[in-house]
Parts: sequence; C-alpha cells; structure tokens
Amino acid sequence: MRAVIMDAPGRITVGEREDPRILKPTDAIIRITATCICGSDLWPYRGVEPVDRTPMGHEYVGVVEEVGDEVKTVRPGDFVVGSFVISCGECEICESGYPSKCVNSEFVSATIGTQAERARIPHADGTLVKTPGRPDPDLIPSLLAASDVLGTGWFAADAAQAGPGKTVVVVGDGAVGLMGVLAAKQLGAERIIAMSHHPERQRLAREFGATDIVEERGSEGAARIRELTGGLGAHSVIEAVGTEESLLQAIRSCRAGGHIGFVGVAHRGVTIPADRLFFAEVHLHGGPAPVRRYLPELIRLIWERRIEPGRVFDLTLPLEEAAAGYEAMDRRTAVKVLLTV
Amino acid sequence: MRAVIMDAPGRITVGEREDPRILKPTDAIIRITATCICGSDLWPYRGVEPVDRTPMGHEYVGVVEEVGDEVKTVRPGDFVVGSFVISCGECEICESGYPSKCVNSEFVSATIGTQAERARIPHADGTLVKTPGRPDPDLIPSLLAASDVLGTGWFAADAAQAGPGKTVVVVGDGAVGLMGVLAAKQLGAERIIAMSHHPERQRLAREFGATDIVEERGSEGAARIRELTGGLGAHSVIEAVGTEESLLQAIRSCRAGGHIGFVGVAHRGVTIPADRLFFAEVHLHGGPAPVRRYLPELIRLIWERRIEPGRVFDLTLPLEEAAAGYEAMDRRTAVKVLLTV
Repeated sequence: MRAVIMDAPGRITVGEREDPRILKPTDAIIRITATCICGSDLWPYRGVEPVDRTPMGHEYVGVVEEVGDEVKTVRPGDFVVGSFVISCGECEICESGYPSKCVNSEFVSATIGTQAERARIPHADGTLVKTPGRPDPDLIPSLLAASDVLGTGWFAADAAQAGPGKTVVVVGDGAVGLMGVLAAKQLGAERIIAMSHHPERQRLAREFGATDIVEERGSEGAARIRELTGGLGAHSVIEAVGTEESLLQAIRSCRAGGHIGFVGVAHRGVTIPADRLFFAEVHLHGGPAPVRRYLPELIRLIWERRIEPGRVFDLTLPLEEAAAGYEAMDRRTAVKVLLTV
Repeated sequence: MRAVIMDAPGRITVGEREDPRILKPTDAIIRITATCICGSDLWPYRGVEPVDRTPMGHEYVGVVEEVGDEVKTVRPGDFVVGSFVISCGECEICESGYPSKCVNSEFVSATIGTQAERARIPHADGTLVKTPGRPDPDLIPSLLAASDVLGTGWFAADAAQAGPGKTVVVVGDGAVGLMGVLAAKQLGAERIIAMSHHPERQRLAREFGATDIVEERGSEGAARIRELTGGLGAHSVIEAVGTEESLLQAIRSCRAGGHIGFVGVAHRGVTIPADRLFFAEVHLHGGPAPVRRYLPELIRLIWERRIEPGRVFDLTLPLEEAAAGYEAMDRRTAVKVLLTV
C-alpha cells in the first residue's frame, strides 16, 4: 500500500509499505478515508525529535475492512473514527476516563502510521467508534478532526472547567487552540479570549466563538488579561503550545482557584517554575487527551451538524502530495492539512 | 510586649516590641495564648530566605482584647483561631473559597509576627473564627494546629481528593505531611501510605491513620508505591515538602487521572519537568492553604474531640525559650514546637 514515510528531518516521501493484516483477535483493519498532519508531526520534521524512515500519521477516519474474532462493536463496512492512542477500554484506567493512559496503550504514531491507505488498529473495540451511518462527504473533515485535534481541544476545555459564567483564555492559536475555542463555546463559556497575533487565525478563532482577541504576549499579555478580567485573571485557561513561555503565560492568566487545561506537548527540558505555580494557586491538568472518552459525544455533535470543527483544515491534498502539506504547516501557511486517501 | 525576633539566620532573640494598636476599623487586637514555630520559619533560620531583625510567627490562637468599629463577628473576650493569611472575606476570590489569595491578603509572617504577647489582626471578620466558648486547656494545641499546619494538611488532602475508596500517598513526614495523613483519614480514605524513614514520625503517622509506610525514596519509592497499588499508582497524593525531588516523587506516585495536592512551599529555582507532568496526566493543585475556608469545620471537629491534631506538637516551651525551639526543629529533634505565651 501507499504510505507517508519521514526519511529524515524535513524529508517526506510517499512510498510502498506492506499491507497490514490481523495479528490478534482484537484487531481491525481499516481502509483510511482521510488522515491529516498534526502539529506534533512537525517536531521530528524540524529535527527536535529523532526520526529515521518512520511511518507517519495518527489521525484517521475510515471504513472497516476486516476484524479479528473477538471484535464486537465494529463490523466490516462500518465507518469509524479512532483515537490517536490505542486503548483496551477495559482496564481500571480506561474505566476511570483516561484511555490515553490505558495500561495497554500504544501511540498510533509510534507504531502504526495512518498517513497510509490502510491501518491495523489493535483493541478495536476500545479504540474505534462507529458513526451512525456512512457520512455525507462534507462531514468527513469534522469527523477526522474528532480523532485528535478536536478531542484534544475538548479535553483542554474540560480540564480547564470551561462552562457557563466562565471567562476562558486560550493560549496558542494553532489547530488545537482553535478547537479549544470551539469546545469552550460549546461547553457554554461566557467569554472566550483568544491570544493570537495572526489575523487569519484571529478570524478563525472568532468564527469558532472567541469574544475577545489579545495580541500581546508575556508580561503585556498577562496585564491585558488582568485588565479584561477585573484584575483577577480568567477562571479557565487552555494551554495549547507546550513551551515554558506558554505555560507561564497560562499560569499568569489564570485566577487563584482557576483551572488550566494543558495539552501542548511539553518536550524534554521544558520546565515549570514551581514557585510560580505554587503562589498562583491554580489547578493544572493535562496530558495526552483521552479522546476516546469524548468520541461518542463529539460524533453526535458533528452528525447533528451542531459543530463544524472541520473548518480548521485550510488545505486539502491527496496523500501523494503529503510533502507539500508538511511544508505548508512548517511555514505556517496552513493551520492544518487534510490528506485524502 | 515580649516578642520573638530573628536577628539574622540562626539567631533568635526574645525582646521588646511596641504593643500593637487598632489602626483601621476592621482590625482586632488579640492577646496570644499559644503560637508555634513553622517549618517555613526554618527557611530564613537556615539562610535560604533573607532575614534581618524580623518579627516571627504566623500561627496563633488567643483572646480578643479590642476591636475596631466595623468588626462584627468577634468581640473582646472571645477566644479565636486565625489563618496565617489575612483575608477580607468579601472579595470574589475569598467568596470562591481562596481566602489565601484574597485581593486584600497579607501574610501574617511578613508584617505581623505572632510569636509575641499580642498581635493586630487586620480584616478580623474575614480572618478570625471564634470558638464556641473558652476552650479547655487540652484543646489549645489542636486549635493552634488549625491555624496553619492542620489547615494546610487538610487543604492538601482536599486538593488531592482524598476520600472513600481512595488510596492516598503522603510525601513528606513533617508536621504538614502528618496532618495530611489525619485529614485523609477524616475524609474517609481507604488506604493511606506515608513515605517516611524516621521511626518516630512513622509511629505518629500510624497514630494519625496511616495504613502503610514506605521507607524508600526516588525510583525505589515510586516502584514500591506501584507495587502497593496494582501497578497503577495512588488515586491521591499529598506533597508536603516543596523540593524538586518531592514533587517528582509525587508525580511518579500518582495514577493517570489522579490528584496531587501540593502544599510544600516551593522556593525560587525549584522546577517541575513539564514533560513528566504532561505524560503522567495527573491533576495538580496547591499553594498557600485557604485555611480560613476550613476553620469552622476544623474547630467543630476539634471541639467535638473527633480529631486531636495537637498531638503533632512534641515540644512545648515558653515564649522566652523560643531559641531552643528553633534549634530543636532545625535539628529535627522536634517535629513541631508550641510556644506558650
């Protein structure tokens, strides 16, 4: 089958990989309908993480082709959305709502690679959710977004306890930050302040529900947030970058007793000053998003056309042109790239 | 009046200070009955924080002598317990349950100093809580503990969501950690694992409700906690030290989706590795404890003799012998020292 391979930092090729096959009775093989490029794929692309002829991709929607003997909830022909983390759905951690930390978890990006024609999905029952039927083509981008970027933004908004009466600050105007705006809006937040100094992303943020834009960063950004929140800071803050600067920005933007949902992937060497966190007296919760927990609800909202997260994709390319997609995201000329298969 | 002064690191004297007087209509003057030495008083004592002829002390119980015209809830003659942070009780932050971050907050240690015969307590209505009557002498140590060390341990257990069915790990066997054990027990935790390698403190921890003791630290300590929790880590972790090692110990001891309450005062330069926190996927909440929020409940439990946190004091000295008390705590020959006035 055809598949995207990152040969080395900055070098994307589309070549041949062996077709996947059922290895365990809990596996499913799916034919990928659409996949995409994640901000986290840029880390190896930029040489920040090691890469060596690595199959890429962890976001996916598609049609089940074959299932192992023990798979109960999906059948060949079903259209499915899956999480970017494989989860068994049965362990104590899955049952507590954290499938992304399942004791049998596996990152799809590390071993499977869904920027390809097909993929083997282990623990299919615990990882995939089928849609109510075959989706209209215009729903595909939104369903694909649910696989990671929407699910991650949703988790961040949930962890930040965005809701009625709350003021929410979103640090980071990438795809996850924008989905955080959408999620905060859906969860009923009263005011949503997007921190962005990029006109195109500001426009998208407003479309998704932002009520205010703050262009300043650092101390000036924090001062602006205080101004907008009666001197107290926001009730809820979504951190969707993962650097020391953005984490501090989040801490400084949050009121005492407030909640920060942090989903920007923090890399080795990034640290949080413990005294700043201590004296800010905020709640901090984040990590790899437990997308599978939210999928049934997100699919429902998309199916009923109450949300349209697929608008976050501003460039669509065929799988064969994946290299151009990586380049566009690296240069920030595209927010997020969808690859059709 | 007589008062404890820290002249310089390691140098404690008891000398004369001017008697406090009402400065604002919301002030109260209290005659101190008992005060104590806090683990945080050891930071300047050890030269980690600057000190220069500083009045010391922020924990206190006593009798109201005089009140300003606007004070409504306490009267001369009332026996009161106060928080170690002054709070107005009326701002949005106080009302949300975070009096320790009140917009009018003031640390008692910074400006007032309760290791003395008398103290002026600003915002008396928002800071002090009167007891149901004049306490029996044997209740004094427990009421004094509520002023900070019990309130702080209680906040940690609450932030860690200790409760029925939960396994709680307590990192730190100082007075706050021991109070965290007591609080976890009161909140109904099923299993309480105290990390300590000091036999005397292990004994106290067991008295306060610890069901297990782990003597190992670092990787071995984390492995032992995993062994005791089915490989998953604890639901709740109390961090009561404030160093990088103890924060990491807490993160490594907590299961995904679990809660860490951190109350060890983190000093400048202490950092949390953001990637470790991210991939652990825990909840983290802490800071200066909002003791005032808990005082009515804690006073009730003490008054009804359902808890006896005063047992945490293992050395009682008159105010005049404060220097010996500091020395005992610095050398860890005493867990916590009560000073009678």
